[in-house]
Amino acid sequence: MSPQKPPRQLHLGAFLQATGHHVAGWRHPGAQADAGRNLAHYIALAQRAEAAGFDALFLADGVAIRGMDDATLPRTARAATFEPLTLLSALAAVTQRIGLVATVSTTYNEPFHVARKFASLDHLSGGRAGWNVVTSWSDAEARNFSLERHPAHADRYARAEEFVDVVTGLWDTWEDDAFLYDKDSGRHFDADKLHTLDHRGAHFQVRGPLNVARPPQGHPVIVQAGSSEAGQELAARTAEVIFTAQQSLADAQAFYRGLKARLARHGRTPDQLKILPGVFPVVGRSEAEAQEKFEALQNLIHPSVGLALLSQHLGGIDLSGYPLDGPLPDNLVEPNGAKSRFQLVTGLARREGLTIRQLCLRVATARGHWSIHGTPQSVADQLQAWFEGEAADGFNVMPPWLPGGLDDFIELVLPELRRRGLFRERYTGTTLREHLGLRRPENLRWQQLEPSLAVGA
Amino acid sequence: MSPQKPPRQLHLGAFLQATGHHVAGWRHPGAQADAGRNLAHYIALAQRAEAAGFDALFLADGVAIRGMDDATLPRTARAATFEPLTLLSALAAVTQRIGLVATVSTTYNEPFHVARKFASLDHLSGGRAGWNVVTSWSDAEARNFSLERHPAHADRYARAEEFVDVVTGLWDTWEDDAFLYDKDSGRHFDADKLHTLDHRGAHFQVRGPLNVARPPQGHPVIVQAGSSEAGQELAARTAEVIFTAQQSLADAQAFYRGLKARLARHGRTPDQLKILPGVFPVVGRSEAEAQEKFEALQNLIHPSVGLALLSQHLGGIDLSGYPLDGPLPDNLVEPNGAKSRFQLVTGLARREGLTIRQLCLRVATARGHWSIHGTPQSVADQLQAWFEGEAADGFNVMPPWLPGGLDDFIELVLPELRRRGLFRERYTGTTLREHLGLRRPENLRWQQLEPSLAVGA
Repeated sequence: MSPQKPPRQLHLGAFLQATGHHVAGWRHPGAQADAGRNLAHYIALAQRAEAAGFDALFLADGVAIRGMDDATLPRTARAATFEPLTLLSALAAVTQRIGLVATVSTTYNEPFHVARKFASLDHLSGGRAGWNVVTSWSDAEARNFSLERHPAHADRYARAEEFVDVVTGLWDTWEDDAFLYDKDSGRHFDADKLHTLDHRGAHFQVRGPLNVARPPQGHPVIVQAGSSEAGQELAARTAEVIFTAQQSLADAQAFYRGLKARLARHGRTPDQLKILPGVFPVVGRSEAEAQEKFEALQNLIHPSVGLALLSQHLGGIDLSGYPLDGPLPDNLVEPNGAKSRFQLVTGLARREGLTIRQLCLRVATARGHWSIHGTPQSVADQLQAWFEGEAADGFNVMPPWLPGGLDDFIELVLPELRRRGLFRERYTGTTLREHLGLRRPENLRWQQLEPSLAVGA
Repeated sequence: MSPQKPPRQLHLGAFLQATGHHVAGWRHPGAQADAGRNLAHYIALAQRAEAAGFDALFLADGVAIRGMDDATLPRTARAATFEPLTLLSALAAVTQRIGLVATVSTTYNEPFHVARKFASLDHLSGGRAGWNVVTSWSDAEARNFSLERHPAHADRYARAEEFVDVVTGLWDTWEDDAFLYDKDSGRHFDADKLHTLDHRGAHFQVRGPLNVARPPQGHPVIVQAGSSEAGQELAARTAEVIFTAQQSLADAQAFYRGLKARLARHGRTPDQLKILPGVFPVVGRSEAEAQEKFEALQNLIHPSVGLALLSQHLGGIDLSGYPLDGPLPDNLVEPNGAKSRFQLVTGLARREGLTIRQLCLRVATARGHWSIHGTPQSVADQLQAWFEGEAADGFNVMPPWLPGGLDDFIELVLPELRRRGLFRERYTGTTLREHLGLRRPENLRWQQLEPSLAVGA
């Protein structure tokens, strides 16, 4: 009897944006409005997502209060929340299996700190850490780091390429079996298994070694969200999970096939990169209930917030001079940051012939991500169509409000997906790599080299 | 009846250096040799220290593998451990009352990240965070951050002064009562209570605001360890706790009185700064047992490790050409980093007429900190003499090995201190500030200003 290949199953992330992904979700009667500083709220969410078998929690991030003006920002719950690495470290102590993915920018950090903190999180969690690599998108961030302007797209990606190489290199400075813990001989580790990195590049000179042991996963999982040309190239070379915003099956398929096709150029196979589009689900026991839930959320959006969000998605363009019930102007200039989001939003407006008012609501709802509402069966149908149609390896589930939006997905949609054999009944592995079906990177870097410990004062 | 002032009591920190503070402590039969990547070990320690009523856990840090050469480093357990902020965040989730103090360097960080992470930890822990401000001391650190050499002492302290001001300023960008959470009106926070910082200094330009709400403690507690002139001035202006290395009652008294006297110049009172010398205790039920425990530890020190540690404490000076049984040479040059440690070690050698070999053992034992061994009564006598003799407001307890060295202090010494009324029976407050008797900083910065929310894209 030959061993059977296990059936391909969905990978699911739980995207935990404090009060939920819908811009007015915090106003829902059941929403935890103080989520941004309420650890008990996050512990409950993490433990529910883990009991439900999600691959990972995902936390977005920015290093500034971004977007919006003083009239609209106070109407959102996005201005002040926990910092992701500290929050995920806390959650590591009260969960056992679920993956923990934090967003960290390569533009406003140093690779030594990032390598070290993710290695530490990977040890704290027994191999459950993931790093969502972003290059940031706002001048507001630049101004918190002694710069006037956000660096140009090409510069950010050149830095990001080198940054990722330094981080993965630092993770490999200790060999897996370096530690001896030999009390009798007094040798704590084997000096031949510790290496300097001696990186000297255009952006960074980093000697190493890292002062944290090699992570349990070898490397924490590398996640990326950029969908621009440079973003896709970086992803094809280095990423293991893609979190992407796609609005239609056709677009998602084109993105999926294009990115998977890029992998071979980097000596990689399609199964080494999992593509997870974001999905914003509103689920009801009937279509009418789902529609009602959706409209109740939409009615909570203050008009000024919708326009501000749309402006932000277009790179800060001022739309106040255009009629709300007219079309998006044709002559918008593509912004320096977040190119792919600009293209997605303008494409949506053109394809569906939306007015500015309609586009505001669409953006405010799911912020560019795929929005679906319906019964558990119809939601499962749509997810299955993308999953089986070469558009997705799974989804990053973005509940409209929290905690109830996550509960709805767990209680209503997951049983239906399981009935169809599309989602795990329980975890079979213990690390995030095992959940995702990703292999653990060997420490190849030093195999061909002489050991060379040389640690300076 | 007038309210009585409560008796002055000791403040105690638990200094948790992975396997313990003694350089060979990891070789003790009961030591947790893999402590640097064992979260369960730290959870047990934190929970024991909390059950015992310690004010705080202290974690040291460096952003490189520092000191030592390839022959001696593998004989220590110091090369690879958890990163402190991620570790303390994990411990925040499994403790309720104990303070959580992490060391973070101002030389190799950006103030926005540091302000944000400590604010986040303070929220995660319900007001238990503290920041031990250091300026680092090694070229090894510089080389992990694209520099060849560690910056000069004066430059580091000038940067540190400005860094601390930016961090505390960012903590104040949100007023305490900014958040409304008003679902009906749709106002999440009051725009009049969010402020930009607009810092423009010699080292940093930071606009703010911080994207984390004002910390529960107002400001996480500021701790410092530098004892140089510049370090003491920074401390007198900004620090609330001093962690210092002192070898004798007379030295400790001089330091204590000198530093407390500096406070008035900055408009501060003596009770606003708590001075906690490090103490390295070896406790036995009898003097003989304590001596035996101490000698057993000393016998575990490999000769090369002692010499390397001494060399490191003197700023990397090579002592291999001098006879081990002769005196320390007179013509040593004071190093760029860690000036106060250099002075402490050379002073100790001169005062006690120690040979290099004897000095090696003294440094290897407690690394410049006050080493005491004896019965619970004699240890308590010594601590009490410093506490009541204007030499200390409490101590940072540095167990020789872990977990047993901490257990010894808790089980043997604390009951004796309590019998004397010198240490709390239980916590009376919930925040680190309350444990330390420090007042919560008001948000004075904005009282005289017009509100001015102006958040850019």
